[in-house]
Amino acid sequence: MIDRYTMTQVVSTGDFISISPSEFFYRNRQMAGFGNPTQAVYSTVRELVENSLDACEDAQKLPVIDVRIRRESSDIIQLSVSDNGTGIPEEHVPNAFGRIFYGSKYGMRQKRGTFGLGVTMAVLYGQLTTDSPVTVSTQMDEGHGLTYKIFIDVEKNEPIIESKHLSRRSGPGTDVSIRLNGDVRRAKSRIIEYLRMTAVSSPHARIILEFEDHDHLHFGGSSTTLPSPSLCTKPHPRGVDRELLRRLLADRGQKSLIEFLIDSFQQVGDRTARRFLRFMALDPKIRADSLTREDLSRLSNTLRRFDGFSRPDSRCLSPIGEFAFKEAVSAEFGVDVLTYAKQGPLEWEGHPLLIEGVIATDNGASQSEIPSLHRFANKVPLLYDASEGVLMKTLRKVTWSRYEVEKSKTVSLFVNVCSTRIPYIAAGKHSIASSTQIEDGALSLFRELGRQLGKSAVKSSQSKRNARRMREFTRSFKIIAKFSAELANRATPPSTVGLVKSLFEVDDHD
Amino acid sequence: MIDRYTMTQVVSTGDFISISPSEFFYRNRQMAGFGNPTQAVYSTVRELVENSLDACEDAQKLPVIDVRIRRESSDIIQLSVSDNGTGIPEEHVPNAFGRIFYGSKYGMRQKRGTFGLGVTMAVLYGQLTTDSPVTVSTQMDEGHGLTYKIFIDVEKNEPIIESKHLSRRSGPGTDVSIRLNGDVRRAKSRIIEYLRMTAVSSPHARIILEFEDHDHLHFGGSSTTLPSPSLCTKPHPRGVDRELLRRLLADRGQKSLIEFLIDSFQQVGDRTARRFLRFMALDPKIRADSLTREDLSRLSNTLRRFDGFSRPDSRCLSPIGEFAFKEAVSAEFGVDVLTYAKQGPLEWEGHPLLIEGVIATDNGASQSEIPSLHRFANKVPLLYDASEGVLMKTLRKVTWSRYEVEKSKTVSLFVNVCSTRIPYIAAGKHSIASSTQIEDGALSLFRELGRQLGKSAVKSSQSKRNARRMREFTRSFKIIAKFSAELANRATPPSTVGLVKSLFEVDDHD
Repeated sequence: MIDRYTMTQVVSTGDFISISPSEFFYRNRQMAGFGNPTQAVYSTVRELVENSLDACEDAQKLPVIDVRIRRESSDIIQLSVSDNGTGIPEEHVPNAFGRIFYGSKYGMRQKRGTFGLGVTMAVLYGQLTTDSPVTVSTQMDEGHGLTYKIFIDVEKNEPIIESKHLSRRSGPGTDVSIRLNGDVRRAKSRIIEYLRMTAVSSPHARIILEFEDHDHLHFGGSSTTLPSPSLCTKPHPRGVDRELLRRLLADRGQKSLIEFLIDSFQQVGDRTARRFLRFMALDPKIRADSLTREDLSRLSNTLRRFDGFSRPDSRCLSPIGEFAFKEAVSAEFGVDVLTYAKQGPLEWEGHPLLIEGVIATDNGASQSEIPSLHRFANKVPLLYDASEGVLMKTLRKVTWSRYEVEKSKTVSLFVNVCSTRIPYIAAGKHSIASSTQIEDGALSLFRELGRQLGKSAVKSSQSKRNARRMREFTRSFKIIAKFSAELANRATPPSTVGLVKSLFEVDDHD
Repeated sequence: MIDRYTMTQVVSTGDFISISPSEFFYRNRQMAGFGNPTQAVYSTVRELVENSLDACEDAQKLPVIDVRIRRESSDIIQLSVSDNGTGIPEEHVPNAFGRIFYGSKYGMRQKRGTFGLGVTMAVLYGQLTTDSPVTVSTQMDEGHGLTYKIFIDVEKNEPIIESKHLSRRSGPGTDVSIRLNGDVRRAKSRIIEYLRMTAVSSPHARIILEFEDHDHLHFGGSSTTLPSPSLCTKPHPRGVDRELLRRLLADRGQKSLIEFLIDSFQQVGDRTARRFLRFMALDPKIRADSLTREDLSRLSNTLRRFDGFSRPDSRCLSPIGEFAFKEAVSAEFGVDVLTYAKQGPLEWEGHPLLIEGVIATDNGASQSEIPSLHRFANKVPLLYDASEGVLMKTLRKVTWSRYEVEKSKTVSLFVNVCSTRIPYIAAGKHSIASSTQIEDGALSLFRELGRQLGKSAVKSSQSKRNARRMREFTRSFKIIAKFSAELANRATPPSTVGLVKSLFEVDDHD
């Protein structure tokens, strides 16, 4: 009754088996954003571009990214993305493209990627649908370039190197090429929207999109300033769980308890550590790994709840920033940017959290009662599945009518959530799961932006009223001036506009 | 700059690492439905109950499942689920609870679980939040019972057996107990809704929910008929991809091409295989594994597109069925069940697909223009994230006003999607991703149910009108009869009701 051949890696006899992460995502590719040919093209572009952006920022270079899409037949395309980033060390290329859950190490630092899933999924999808390997050409600062062709062994979750040879490149960087079954016609508008949004959140990047050989589109470059590099921080004590504590102890448990705490966590100096240990009635001088299991449980619980630790360090975050965000929204969307606001640095589960947003208006009556929402998480544009995400859910809680938006305007919101931990609902990274702290932060941000919008609407209607009054007054004043001049037998004054203006300026300062 | 201790399993030096599936879901637990203490309680109940249901159905037994929730402190609970299923073979217990992506083998056959993720996630979440192992007591038909306490080694994705000893049970089955940080107060209503829905889709199961020691709730049992066991089928040729073909060839590539096709796939007999190979201009007698790479690519593409194969066998599906579905909806929700309809067996990507639904009404004016929707996938109730799912999206496309629903009624829809492949949006299994075939099937189903609803509304308003006419006529008729009797000097007839009725019956048959 059991189909032996649909099963893999039989760990032992009987009816149970263990499967590899590649096998899991091969079976459930829609969970990673590869559910159909339209999604697949979009996700491939996105994963490759985000990898390139991270690579360029690691190298502290202004990213220049080239996305090329060529159709080979009605449903087979060749998709290539090249960048001027750091390049990938030779020994890591096979695993970085041929093994799921293999990626560049990170500490507590804002990054675009979740972890080693996206690009490998694109490679896997290409392999499954076109039987072709991924082609990777990469060159680091020193040395020659290398070109690899790599398949994935799905059962083992391991790379298979099809070929590897030296290649010339004009400079450092990486070029990745994937053949896949994709629906470009339907994906095109999404890809363009995605790159336009990327140009908003990473305005220092220049991205060129080439469809076939003719259709070239340019995105970004509204800023030439690199975002300042974000710092790696230690974990915050309120973000600790038993697993992290176990690892820290394995690494440095031989230290004294107080040294262990100061060394392992951020926001724990000598004074704080002493206060904390007094509170827990533990001896600062005992070896950390001599604690009993019960003590460890208490330690982990108390670290999470003790309110004597300062908020998590937010220097590991890299927001877009007021100037760049406003400029980019205006440049890419051609709307009237009203204002920028941010909430934070806040905290959620020991991670720093910062939510920034821009509100803009455009002419044209809106069909909707709530503003249109453009979402980012750690600068990654989120285009799909908005309605289940925490941002849209929060947006609906705001009483927008209160802010007396002008009826003739459409309102747009651009919101970027930054944190060292973004709780994506699914591996495809389309929306953020609900969390009290993110919701509270977003709510405050929306209200702040709403108030600014309301003020500007009032100002704008006031200034319209004033302009009308001034126009009427100017007309009357001209007649009065002429009449008075005639009465007084004087020449009519050449212009009365200056007089009227000074009159209204006084009025403004009331 | 890099935090060495937040990293795991460094595969090689440098800045890249490989992480285990446990590590991935430890970092991204919200993707599997364990994002916060409320979700975690709900997901734990759900994963354990679904495992139990599958185990009982495998044993062809009416499931008796006991769910017990006890609070130990304000936020720590003990959650246990016991069943009368097959029990778990001794050698598989550690991996089944201590290794992500380890699960019971399946061929192409409808199952509730995705694959070896859910229960292990519950164990992992319990371990992280309470530092406690899972306790598993299990007994198979023959032999003694065994009780295990198991932790997960997150870095290695391996079970750690804390203890193992013989234990007595009254009979075969499994009892799983997990200590976790959970918010029962907020999860309670969701758990109750989930079990009520489970009682609709699996009405042959009896489930008891115990909060503390007093509060007992009973669900299900509206049917005492076991669903007939679903069959394991071979893969359908239209569901083939290069990976599957590779595995099939590794297993039986030494056969002749025609034998290989007949043996490997369903719906491929001698005649179909010959026709197919003629179409491809391939010799039926060559060894299957002697095909060139190009031929294999062509073979895989052509298998997917050739229209000479019959539809996939649907005997591997196990729908709820008309009688059980209607009875259970009526028993659990106390609504007036109008009708049942189904679409299929249909096909999607080589998998059989069947969508069944029940439409019901209840008194009380509805606030919504569209019916309320209760969703199931392979009999698993889906409670969260409805709005991004394919069923809700499709429901919104139906013009419900066309079916002239009575204004005084609320309408409910219960829909169950059955397939050997359900494309869940996320690992938490809350909603189904969009797919043309599922959408088309659901749309036809909704329209069919809508028409039935419309007819019944017409009938009901006709029968109301008739009833009113009959009442008035009966009254008048009585007076006429009395009057005529007096006129004719006869005794008034004792009852005229029968006469009026026969009159209206004639009217009905017009």
